[in-house]
Amino acid sequence: MTGSLTVVGLGPGDPDLLTDSARAALDRAQDLIGYIPYVARVPERPGLVRHASDNRVEIDRARHALELAASGRHVAVVSGGDPGVFAMAAAVFEAVDHGDPAWRQLAITVEPGITAMLAAAARLGAPLGGDFCALSLSDNLKPWEVVTARLEAVLRADLVVALYNPISKARPWQLGAALEIAAGIRAAETPVAFARAVRRPDEAIRVMTLAEAREAPADMATLVLIGASTTRLIPRGVGQHPFVYTARSVAAR
Amino acid sequence: MTGSLTVVGLGPGDPDLLTDSARAALDRAQDLIGYIPYVARVPERPGLVRHASDNRVEIDRARHALELAASGRHVAVVSGGDPGVFAMAAAVFEAVDHGDPAWRQLAITVEPGITAMLAAAARLGAPLGGDFCALSLSDNLKPWEVVTARLEAVLRADLVVALYNPISKARPWQLGAALEIAAGIRAAETPVAFARAVRRPDEAIRVMTLAEAREAPADMATLVLIGASTTRLIPRGVGQHPFVYTARSVAAR
Repeated sequence: MTGSLTVVGLGPGDPDLLTDSARAALDRAQDLIGYIPYVARVPERPGLVRHASDNRVEIDRARHALELAASGRHVAVVSGGDPGVFAMAAAVFEAVDHGDPAWRQLAITVEPGITAMLAAAARLGAPLGGDFCALSLSDNLKPWEVVTARLEAVLRADLVVALYNPISKARPWQLGAALEIAAGIRAAETPVAFARAVRRPDEAIRVMTLAEAREAPADMATLVLIGASTTRLIPRGVGQHPFVYTARSVAAR
Repeated sequence: MTGSLTVVGLGPGDPDLLTDSARAALDRAQDLIGYIPYVARVPERPGLVRHASDNRVEIDRARHALELAASGRHVAVVSGGDPGVFAMAAAVFEAVDHGDPAWRQLAITVEPGITAMLAAAARLGAPLGGDFCALSLSDNLKPWEVVTARLEAVLRADLVVALYNPISKARPWQLGAALEIAAGIRAAETPVAFARAVRRPDEAIRVMTLAEAREAPADMATLVLIGASTTRLIPRGVGQHPFVYTARSVAAR
């Protein structure tokens, strides 16, 4: 077997946020595998076979990629953001773990990318300036009780919270429930940011209080950031959202 | 004031992990400000004035950058990894918040980068495949009691934990104390990774159990990852560290 599999992070969508290393991995690929909109981001070229698939078939997609690599092909599995953060890398290694033992000998690599949380933070200022966490609000793969237990723990520990997968057509109420839990633990004036489609043409950044966030609309392309007690706003001019940053220092309790 | 200030993430050190957008920001800069080893990573060129400073003077460095930008210069403040993650962006916005009100009108932007946690995860497999957090073990800016309270909370909530700033000459015992706390909450066989200087020539990746980690050496260039109950190892050939990944699914309790 002389094939290879690279899981490539495409970043938030702006081609200027791709790393050279990720671009080189795409240039080497013979087969491109991923969710339809991510495959569509990679320019067509002669010799590149594109295998775009719908959402929520991650394990099938991973197995397909491994089979192609095992047959000698050079395969790139593409993910938005960073492939290791709520994306395809874990699905690929799950498939390796439970699949053909020969797959363990394949040249499998991961090319990191700018995950949504980092792109959103950069647009806002420095909201992740202290300790922080990334939680997926999806209860497709874990019970809702686990989601809420984790959320309560990190809110009480005063971490900044980045919520991935906050809402979808099939999961319309989870974000509201999460913000309700947050409102029971953090102050009503806690800064909250909804960062949508960061660095894409339809980017929309909203900064509000936790109380206001409970009424604000969001969609699948939104990353939600809930500030800590040390997260502050710096007002700017009309039409500009304030800078949001989390102070590096925490006072003694 | 027609100057500007961009806080630029240089990534883990491999120039191939820089984004095009970060590189363009460096190319536009007239003044380069940062910690000595980060400034040294940027090639010299005519017209670029370099201001390298020692560690632990972040606020002085941020004020200097803002003063230069306010005087009309185009300034790049460089950080390793992502500037928003335990790096220079928060210091810059702290300086804006507490400094000259005119600084709020400056064109201040942040260029995200590949933070150590993402680079290390990509090398290991997909250890951040579930919910995770990033904690700084440094007690320079927060009381040790806050560090340990946060660590206990995220360990009990079964998040994967990335420990930044695990150890330094001035803070020799904190990592051992943190691993001791982890050993009281997580199983002795929990996977732990020490990822040092990822994608630099002196890269060293070690994967071990939590019990073994308590005896393992680390230094300032090390990122420590403590797995969750769902973090698994996939053994490979002799001389290769196992793949480490965190399963995407969490069973009902």
